[in-house]
Amino acid sequence: MSARLSEDDNKNSAIATYMHKLGRAARAAAREMAVADPGVKNAALFAIADAIESASDTLLAANAKDLRAGRGQLDSALLERLELTPDRIAAMAEGMRQVAGLPDPVGEITDLNYRPSGIQVGRMRVPLGVIGIIYESRPNVTADAAALCLKSGNAAILRGGSEAKESNQAIGDCIENALAAAGLPRAAVQVVETTDRAAVGEMLRMDEYLDVVVPRGGKGLVEFVTANARVPVIKHLDGVCHVYIDDQADLEKAVAIAVNAKTQRYGTCNTMETLLVAEGVAEQVLKPLGKTLRQAGVEIRGCERTRRVLNDAVPAQDSDWGEEYLGPILAVKVVPDMAAAIDHIETYGSHHTDTIVTENITRARHFLRAVDSASVMVNASTRFADGFEYGLGAEIGISTDKLHARGPVGLEGLTSVKYVVLGDGHVR
Amino acid sequence: MSARLSEDDNKNSAIATYMHKLGRAARAAAREMAVADPGVKNAALFAIADAIESASDTLLAANAKDLRAGRGQLDSALLERLELTPDRIAAMAEGMRQVAGLPDPVGEITDLNYRPSGIQVGRMRVPLGVIGIIYESRPNVTADAAALCLKSGNAAILRGGSEAKESNQAIGDCIENALAAAGLPRAAVQVVETTDRAAVGEMLRMDEYLDVVVPRGGKGLVEFVTANARVPVIKHLDGVCHVYIDDQADLEKAVAIAVNAKTQRYGTCNTMETLLVAEGVAEQVLKPLGKTLRQAGVEIRGCERTRRVLNDAVPAQDSDWGEEYLGPILAVKVVPDMAAAIDHIETYGSHHTDTIVTENITRARHFLRAVDSASVMVNASTRFADGFEYGLGAEIGISTDKLHARGPVGLEGLTSVKYVVLGDGHVR
Repeated sequence: MSARLSEDDNKNSAIATYMHKLGRAARAAAREMAVADPGVKNAALFAIADAIESASDTLLAANAKDLRAGRGQLDSALLERLELTPDRIAAMAEGMRQVAGLPDPVGEITDLNYRPSGIQVGRMRVPLGVIGIIYESRPNVTADAAALCLKSGNAAILRGGSEAKESNQAIGDCIENALAAAGLPRAAVQVVETTDRAAVGEMLRMDEYLDVVVPRGGKGLVEFVTANARVPVIKHLDGVCHVYIDDQADLEKAVAIAVNAKTQRYGTCNTMETLLVAEGVAEQVLKPLGKTLRQAGVEIRGCERTRRVLNDAVPAQDSDWGEEYLGPILAVKVVPDMAAAIDHIETYGSHHTDTIVTENITRARHFLRAVDSASVMVNASTRFADGFEYGLGAEIGISTDKLHARGPVGLEGLTSVKYVVLGDGHVR
Repeated sequence: MSARLSEDDNKNSAIATYMHKLGRAARAAAREMAVADPGVKNAALFAIADAIESASDTLLAANAKDLRAGRGQLDSALLERLELTPDRIAAMAEGMRQVAGLPDPVGEITDLNYRPSGIQVGRMRVPLGVIGIIYESRPNVTADAAALCLKSGNAAILRGGSEAKESNQAIGDCIENALAAAGLPRAAVQVVETTDRAAVGEMLRMDEYLDVVVPRGGKGLVEFVTANARVPVIKHLDGVCHVYIDDQADLEKAVAIAVNAKTQRYGTCNTMETLLVAEGVAEQVLKPLGKTLRQAGVEIRGCERTRRVLNDAVPAQDSDWGEEYLGPILAVKVVPDMAAAIDHIETYGSHHTDTIVTENITRARHFLRAVDSASVMVNASTRFADGFEYGLGAEIGISTDKLHARGPVGLEGLTSVKYVVLGDGHVR
């Protein structure tokens, strides 16, 4: 037992040493990245894209090893996500080039104004510094996350799942070599080599090296990171999204939005999980909607009032409000009015994305103000809550936090601002 | 022992129950505050100002109790900060009215643009929700913090130091009564009644009720809060501020800025603690500067090269770089060039406020970009790093964090943004 403990100690101390080495290298690289010109960063992104395409065979071979190791261990959905194909490799390279084409956020100075004292005060957008990304299964995240961190002038430490070890390492090699060729520090993007879980624990504690950690994966991963991080976290937890159909809604729009918000994709965080319908239009809405959803194979879990219209609906339990099904299930509740809908959303929602369907501008105006979610919508499907749809150009994730970054997080979410002050010998 | 433990358990459980009651009430109040019209919030601020002025005698009597209890326990500086005078009471009321006069940040919609899909996407500035403030000694913080939280549409839980218990409670009473009279929820501002330290611990863990905690006080308090908070923290840690005098500086400006940055006030976080001087101008700068600082009673701790010019300077130890003296002491180092100055700042600084004095625009431009501090200045005294000087109108503190709020934090730092999406039945 004590021998085992000391083995563990040695192992953990070796991992800590290794992670701190990555941290120090990243910190040094971050200083260079922060002052790198946009042209140099873009050239590096193009070089990485080329390197990934040229290394297609190597990447497929590495991925084949991961797939072999995963067979029998992982379910088919995970294996599918793990797989690289020539198309997926081309998409990774294309994604790199698209990020290169986005406006460079770093160094932009805004609000530079003269103050009564005579100094000029403005704000400059700056990189966060060193960003840690902890993710699962999909190896393309290695390339996507690297692209966003590079473009925003940050250094990145990437820690993918053990199931994609070989693939991530091969992609990481392409990135590091291309960075060096472009004259940027290799350590601007580092892929953690060990798949030992202790490396994650160490990373979460390295607040002297990391400025922020972004977990990308299932709820278990995100909760683990949040509970253990001393480094600030940008995270996405739940997506319990609501559509509220008001009694002054255009019913055709209402049904179309509800069907789209539920069925366009089941597994995404911006999919509707609960539908709220105003009493006054419950029957008119639920009859056609129930039919369409039934045809699509969606199970409806309804409140008592819902079941008076849709007799075959499953009775909803208390636990259904607030449930993120991520599948073909929908909770439906009939509410007396908008105020009750907002109460329900504030009580059971996850502050992700919520929509009102109404033609009444006074209600729309109030709903927009009163619902405390990262995205609040009028007459649009919750499925629009997405960095690309919002015009961010790219997305590292969707934040359900309130501080720093809220909603879809693009390049701007990976930056901060500092004050710049210009004087001419000014003193107080 | 077990009896004692169970007494503690009972006490802690009573405190937890009490704090959770405050938390729930604050959360409910926050929902009302978020949709309160600017006029209503301003009326409440004016009503509080009036109430504070009318209660002048009550406040002075409560304060006298605190002062009596503090005598013999607190040093004279603390007693001085604790004391309320008619002037200080008038200043509190005046501060309230000034905050009422600031532009209301809540609800502002920016960047509302049509996307290719036809939806309009914009961002609305919104309150954070419930803000916890933990502070020491000065009772005026109770009024100042309440004003900023109210104006920004938040609910506040205020936890002052035990030494100001009676004063804080009396000010809190004025605020709560005026809120009720103005038609806003009393629980929009709650002063924690117990001075038991366990209440702070509980507050830091109440992430279901609090959106952010702002510690205002000494380093010990800030470190305690940071180490124990599950709630996000906006904090100010160190102010190790530098002035770098370049060899292309205007020497008259350089001396004036250095003297001002060190001597205008010693105890503030934006006071210069280390002066860096380029080799080429070391003698020309240090001779007149040394004389002025000596006359002001400032002790100079110099590197070897500094002491060749200022023979009476104390030899600087390694620990002097990175020290926040908050008093009449200055560390001075002669550096070969700007790159070495930046290296020094990045190694030993606290990322608070750093200034270059130079007439060379290329160097100024590089310094502004490369120095990773909340405020980076050219030819201006570090003492300008202040919410009022920057035009924020008010300040809850100066953040040395990178995420969310950096540098002086005014009303905007107490808000977040959410996405608003307007459609006309749009689906994906």
